[in-house]
Amino acid sequence: MAETAEEKRQRLIGLAKQAVSKAYSTGEHSIAQAINAYNEIEKTRNLLHERVEEWYGIYFPELTLGSAEKYTRFVLSAGSNKKQASEEKLREIFGEGSKEMLTWIRQSIGAEPEESEFKALSAIANAELELLRTEKEIDAYLKDNVPKLMPNVSYLVDYKLAAELLSKAGSLNKLAVMPSGTLQLLGAEKALFRHLRSGSKPPKYGVLFKLKEVTEADRRSRGRIARLFATKLSIAARADAISRRFIGKQLRESIDENLKRIREKEKSMPPAREQHAAGRGYGGRQRQFSRRFRGNRG
Amino acid sequence: MAETAEEKRQRLIGLAKQAVSKAYSTGEHSIAQAINAYNEIEKTRNLLHERVEEWYGIYFPELTLGSAEKYTRFVLSAGSNKKQASEEKLREIFGEGSKEMLTWIRQSIGAEPEESEFKALSAIANAELELLRTEKEIDAYLKDNVPKLMPNVSYLVDYKLAAELLSKAGSLNKLAVMPSGTLQLLGAEKALFRHLRSGSKPPKYGVLFKLKEVTEADRRSRGRIARLFATKLSIAARADAISRRFIGKQLRESIDENLKRIREKEKSMPPAREQHAAGRGYGGRQRQFSRRFRGNRG
Repeated sequence: MAETAEEKRQRLIGLAKQAVSKAYSTGEHSIAQAINAYNEIEKTRNLLHERVEEWYGIYFPELTLGSAEKYTRFVLSAGSNKKQASEEKLREIFGEGSKEMLTWIRQSIGAEPEESEFKALSAIANAELELLRTEKEIDAYLKDNVPKLMPNVSYLVDYKLAAELLSKAGSLNKLAVMPSGTLQLLGAEKALFRHLRSGSKPPKYGVLFKLKEVTEADRRSRGRIARLFATKLSIAARADAISRRFIGKQLRESIDENLKRIREKEKSMPPAREQHAAGRGYGGRQRQFSRRFRGNRG
Repeated sequence: MAETAEEKRQRLIGLAKQAVSKAYSTGEHSIAQAINAYNEIEKTRNLLHERVEEWYGIYFPELTLGSAEKYTRFVLSAGSNKKQASEEKLREIFGEGSKEMLTWIRQSIGAEPEESEFKALSAIANAELELLRTEKEIDAYLKDNVPKLMPNVSYLVDYKLAAELLSKAGSLNKLAVMPSGTLQLLGAEKALFRHLRSGSKPPKYGVLFKLKEVTEADRRSRGRIARLFATKLSIAARADAISRRFIGKQLRESIDENLKRIREKEKSMPPAREQHAAGRGYGGRQRQFSRRFRGNRG
């Protein structure tokens, strides 16, 4: 019996559905979405926290804590009268430090917010904590799923960095066929094109700047270390996308060996000059800028 | 009996506390914080929503709704199998449109997200709705408190715009003693300094661009209308900060009269040229830029 037009339509729709499902079944798309959302949420949470500290700061200027979460939880439990914050609650938030906190509260020169004002402030504080919870959920998702998709890449670098590389490249296949020099500069597109356009110094790394191996190194070795990682990550991505064999261990060993060599080389270098040491802690791009301006002035 | 050192210390601390409380008791600080937080939260909520639509879009590409909130609520109720979304829930979200939605769901070519993926996605969706709730709470706070602090200013313009003027000026007193030309350009500092530096066209308005009287006017009258509002807002701010008399009604009448005159003048103007009409809908600053570039090319 020949297929009717309607049957054909249904069959084709079925095929299309399968194709759509298959295209997204690798989870690459969701990992890219997740890491981008994570970065956006982290940024906003920090903004909201600054807002909370700036706002509540006028009511309790003495309170300076290293932990944003503890600060915000305290604000919420203090309510519109910090002296009413229960000892139990304080112990829950600050642990050992709760006694000291009681003293701070008693001696504070800050006034108290009005009910309606505290309501607005606490809405922001609650939003901040909600974003923190969201971050943790996304983080758990990435931790579970990135190593499944990219066992080799995520063996060499943190799973969040692996996800970022994937998202910046567009897909695992694109990451795999990418020259390692391109991989090295993923995330540094702006600096790269500025370099091509205006002849400023070329960037040494993009998202790879998040590697502690890079940040902790002498600044003159950073480019070298980023290049080393890019080379090995490129091989790892190929293994993840194409051969699907686990070669992470060998790659990691090779990285460690090379790092050792680079560090030995560092020892024979003259000490870093003062003006460079002062630039430490900034990204390479910012430093380039200041160097250019210095050049213009001199 | 003379005061001991400790008593003196306590008395001085008490005075300091009073001074601090008094300085912030006007609520200006909290209103500025609230409107800034509102703007930041709104921006992030939009970002998160884009993320939700982009992510869930691969599972339900047919779903395009005008309302971000409805979309996100649907995503949450659809879970990892949209066909399981209960009719009741759909009716709750879409009202009349729920029948149509059922058809869309049945015919969708999209696959379904995995459990773990949906968990990450729904965390983002929940964060978006939480930010929406936060926005509403801050909005309620502003609606209640801005008119109390600035009865005249918030009679002439929306309470959120009034709060933004306050926040940009720094304090009500500063807003009151500000020349109306400065008030007109609050929020356009970047364009203003660009103008002073490079001779580009001066900006016509900053945050006042949010006035619908400005946006809806012929672009050749916009600067005039912004100046009109700035003049009256400046008087209103003085009344709010200094005389504390309510003169909003007279000011509003005077604005309406002047608006009428400006609109009559518009009628006698030649019709706007095509190339300018195309620029409509953009902020004044963007248009200036494109005009400059056009000039360079010609």
